Amino acid sequence: MAPLIETKYVFTITARIGEVTSAGEIGTGVRRIIPITGGEVKGENINGKVCAFGADFQVIRPNELIELEARYAFETDDGAVVYVENKGIRFGPVELLQKLKRGEPVDPNLI
Amino acid sequence: MAPLIETKYVFTITARIGEVTSAGEIGTGVRRIIPITGGEVKGENINGKVCAFGADFQVIRPNELIELEARYAFETDDGAVVYVENKGIRFGPVELLQKLKRGEPVDPNLI
Amino acid sequence: MAPLIETKYVFTITARIGEVTSAGEIGTGVRRIIPITGGEVKGENINGKVCAFGADFQVIRPNELIELEARYAFETDDGAVVYVENKGIRFGPVELLQKLKRGEPVDPNLI
Amino acid sequence: MAPLIETKYVFTITARIGEVTSAGEIGTGVRRIIPITGGEVKGENINGKVCAFGADFQVIRPNELIELEARYAFETDDGAVVYVENKGIRFGPVELLQKLKRGEPVDPNLI
Repeated sequence: MAPLIETKYVFTITARIGEVTSAGEIGTGVRRIIPITGGEVKGENINGKVCAFGADFQVIRPNELIELEARYAFETDDGAVVYVENKGIRFGPVELLQKLKRGEPVDPNLI
Repeated sequence: MAPLIETKYVFTITARIGEVTSAGEIGTGVRRIIPITGGEVKGENINGKVCAFGADFQVIRPNELIELEARYAFETDDGAVVYVENKGIRFGPVELLQKLKRGEPVDPNLI
Repeated sequence: MAPLIETKYVFTITARIGEVTSAGEIGTGVRRIIPITGGEVKGENINGKVCAFGADFQVIRPNELIELEARYAFETDDGAVVYVENKGIRFGPVELLQKLKRGEPVDPNLI
Repeated sequence: MAPLIETKYVFTITARIGEVTSAGEIGTGVRRIIPITGGEVKGENINGKVCAFGADFQVIRPNELIELEARYAFETDDGAVVYVENKGIRFGPVELLQKLKRGEPVDPNLI
């Protein structure tokens, strides 16, 4: 009735980001774009580089929840290109979400 | 019954693009990303620069039609940031779509 | 520079709707569903019936603008099924949008 | 590094469906609509009825994978309306996916 979902560690993506740009209120929140400028992929059987394009296209809702839509790609050492599209909603304590909005560091375990 | 839709010229966006990346067949076609690296916006009452991030995230369908989803931004001379999201399907004669796919120039009036 | 877009009348869809259901505030506005229960398609060269399923899935934003996403189908007299997906944002004077929200009639020429 | 995701049983939705409608090939596969006509929600602390509208809007890809987008609602015994939007891709052995496409029963444990 309540199955466990097993997960398997495959790799870690460390993305570098550029300057954050805001395009203001769009009716459902504040549009914010976080460019991705590069980075690394490291795992047991897969290693590579994050491509120097793509971004996380966000909307910060009036209640501080953040709609994420990251679109980027990485290239493995053996030449395969993997396109990544991550959609989701970041939620957590409002004061931590507001810290994120101001660009202040937040303990990832708390959010 | 069949109204004319009047249009009004406002500005021209000239975007510079980076190297095109393909992530291969994704089940509904070929994923292709065309990074946007800058450019200019020129009009009578609006002038500015295209921001150095964003991309056109495309899928080339088996029948050569191209699904476009461009996401980028520009900043006007007086400091406003405008986020642009253009979705659509590019269609036209198959031989011209195949030229586009190979990166060859195509007369914009024909497609 | 500013082309006219010519339109061509093809057919009129008259959809019957069922009782409107609201699922309350969802963070970006109020979710509202308007079921489609049937209707008619009439034109010079195409006639048919709207299928008895589908709906207009709406979000009424805090500023009263309405995000529409209608998904339904109709079947022509000669047996072709056409699926329709209409996305858009309904805007107009706030007092008329509020009438629409309350289910009151609004002159379609004003909105 | 590889966390378990714990799940918690809350309720079971049993939806009744109407006649399946196909709108043919749309360029990325075959559009198929499965209307939802009612049903039941049963759980320990939540019980209700599935509303008599909504549908699963599917695309059957050329490789038989099925893109699902179910949109429907249910109303609990105490009067709350819950809107459900389920997006996903159904995959499994091709012969079982083809059975599903023909409307034949398939053991849910195998797919």
